[in-house]
Amino acid sequence: MYGVKGIRLAATAAGIRYQGRDDLLLIELAEGGNCAAVFTRNAFCAAPVTVAREHLSKGKVRYLLINSGNANAGTGALGLQAAVATCRVLADAAGCASSQVLPFSTGVIGEDLPLDPFVRAMPALLQGLAADNWPAAAAAIMTTDTVPKLVSRTVELSQGRVAVTGIAKGAGMICPDMATMLAYIATDAAVPQSVLQQMLGDAVEPSFNAITVDGDTSTNDACVLLASGVSGHPVESLDSQDGRRLAQGVRAVCAELAEMIVRDGEGATKLVRIRVESAADREEARRVAYTVAHSPLVKTALFASDPNWGRILAAVGRAGVSGLAIERVRIWLGEVCIVSGGGRDPGYTEQAGQAVMAADEIEIRIDLDRGRSSVQVLSCDLSFDYVKINAEYRT
Amino acid sequence: MYGVKGIRLAATAAGIRYQGRDDLLLIELAEGGNCAAVFTRNAFCAAPVTVAREHLSKGKVRYLLINSGNANAGTGALGLQAAVATCRVLADAAGCASSQVLPFSTGVIGEDLPLDPFVRAMPALLQGLAADNWPAAAAAIMTTDTVPKLVSRTVELSQGRVAVTGIAKGAGMICPDMATMLAYIATDAAVPQSVLQQMLGDAVEPSFNAITVDGDTSTNDACVLLASGVSGHPVESLDSQDGRRLAQGVRAVCAELAEMIVRDGEGATKLVRIRVESAADREEARRVAYTVAHSPLVKTALFASDPNWGRILAAVGRAGVSGLAIERVRIWLGEVCIVSGGGRDPGYTEQAGQAVMAADEIEIRIDLDRGRSSVQVLSCDLSFDYVKINAEYRT
Repeated sequence: MYGVKGIRLAATAAGIRYQGRDDLLLIELAEGGNCAAVFTRNAFCAAPVTVAREHLSKGKVRYLLINSGNANAGTGALGLQAAVATCRVLADAAGCASSQVLPFSTGVIGEDLPLDPFVRAMPALLQGLAADNWPAAAAAIMTTDTVPKLVSRTVELSQGRVAVTGIAKGAGMICPDMATMLAYIATDAAVPQSVLQQMLGDAVEPSFNAITVDGDTSTNDACVLLASGVSGHPVESLDSQDGRRLAQGVRAVCAELAEMIVRDGEGATKLVRIRVESAADREEARRVAYTVAHSPLVKTALFASDPNWGRILAAVGRAGVSGLAIERVRIWLGEVCIVSGGGRDPGYTEQAGQAVMAADEIEIRIDLDRGRSSVQVLSCDLSFDYVKINAEYRT
Repeated sequence: MYGVKGIRLAATAAGIRYQGRDDLLLIELAEGGNCAAVFTRNAFCAAPVTVAREHLSKGKVRYLLINSGNANAGTGALGLQAAVATCRVLADAAGCASSQVLPFSTGVIGEDLPLDPFVRAMPALLQGLAADNWPAAAAAIMTTDTVPKLVSRTVELSQGRVAVTGIAKGAGMICPDMATMLAYIATDAAVPQSVLQQMLGDAVEPSFNAITVDGDTSTNDACVLLASGVSGHPVESLDSQDGRRLAQGVRAVCAELAEMIVRDGEGATKLVRIRVESAADREEARRVAYTVAHSPLVKTALFASDPNWGRILAAVGRAGVSGLAIERVRIWLGEVCIVSGGGRDPGYTEQAGQAVMAADEIEIRIDLDRGRSSVQVLSCDLSFDYVKINAEYRT
């Protein structure tokens, strides 16, 4: 794990909902650093998302304040007041403006967020700030995640080495009442805000925006990229060699965190890589990939290790691709061609299909033969445990 | 059960896949009768769907030939030849043109349809034709349906009474490798083909096109409406009083059959009625309704009888309604308002929500406060048995 110069973290057990474990995380960004963020597109976004968006637009971010156990979502006007109040509590203790704090929450939807735990925890949080607290930070933001998710790399820039370290939690709406995918990535490179925002957008698209467990976009999703600049190594644009190197490092960290989320998906027993190739455009490729990824029949077949290609074919067929020529579509399970010419490939054998499906990681590749766009989506299977976790959580 | 003058049916055990049960159904329409049909929009439509569409466009339909146990889907050029050949076998034996036969199949995807069972069964089928065979017909088209689905009504027209009787099978892609929703409705009223087709389209939209079990549109879906005209009671247009009465009868039969399909959905323990009201347009209303209906988190909460309103709210929020004002959205469970003002309704109690969720039939009503469109979708819950049925089918 590589610490990031200019980034300090502290986690503590504030008792917001969980007992006996850390549930409040503070991340401090050195003065002069930059912050970029992307948020959920869910219209019912949670109160902290609304407040974080507004604060981000106002200027220089110094702190990220993240609690688990309570999503502060579906909480109306009171929820907005609570999110603003948590920022104020921190700002007063730290001596900065309230708008320099971005709040984030993950946990139960629809319960009022209590302020007292924040007030009580604040002194210890600020005193505990340290550069090597990334592992504790990854653990503090977990809800029903079974493993903490931390990825760390270094990138060689022309003037020296910088770190790119990130943490994440969740897997789609990984929890019944709990709803969040959160990720925080930081580097000590010096990156202008506009470049940082574009770098984050580029990295999120093929990573966090290309995974699914159950298709249920959460109300609290957020991904933040911090650049402290404390390494002294500047990256002025994405077009420079250093820009490409750093962007590549950020993409790699995002991709690895995203994959960890899917592997830890509720009840997941398989990691499924769905590649759609030769689509007319990106939108069409995504539609086909997600239709296959979300099909309950495909997901249960994956759980059963059943090479049930008819279900994949039916899902591709209903994806709403206008004028799809079915006789030109080809589908592979791993290296095994299963569909061609509008039906089962002549060379396909059930035995070959079963050998692919028996593995823990499975690739489904779909060639539409319509153009040059391709896309990859990571997903998982639908198991008894998924139903169990989601049906029994509140009982 | 009301027989329909001018319609005769016969079912037999042809041994296409199942042993010891009927799996082949013949429906005969009197000469001079009319036939309307709608088919799956899945691009990978099955061979019989392609052939039935083509034959329907050529002229006067006399026979529907329906087999269960094999969907003849994903079978390429050979599948098309097989579908045409089954029509030819019947046409030769019955003395009509091959194009006067519409073929339908439901069952396993991707296996070649054998012709011999059709050849062997044909004499018995033709000899067995009788007006009162509707119950046997409903049973012959079942795959993993647990109950046969038959609905029968009479409609008073100005010149006398006519019957409207229908059968259906399936529930979305109700079976693992098997994929079909099939429905056949017949009346002895005399109805011109163009009027009949419009009447069917109008009836299918709020019934069969407004149900979902798992969102997996099958490759073989088809719904047929026959009008024999043998009652001698004519319906010349949809605008006449008789036209409205008959259309109402057809709609009612379709709606009832559609509801039977959802009740018999794989692993279903609850019937869920999702009403979206005051949407800007029909497309938007449908998008919200289906997003809620297909959400695995909402479906597992329904299975658990858990009034988990945060999941419903999150699903509405991610449905992609542009400019949705969340503070104006209201959501009810039955008569209990659960969401208003962007969060939990002030009058809501968990106890009241639980009382609604404990029932076998649940209504979720969502008011978007954006316009005048409303839509209703019938769905069911996601249970352990759904995963069991679909994960274990081929093992």
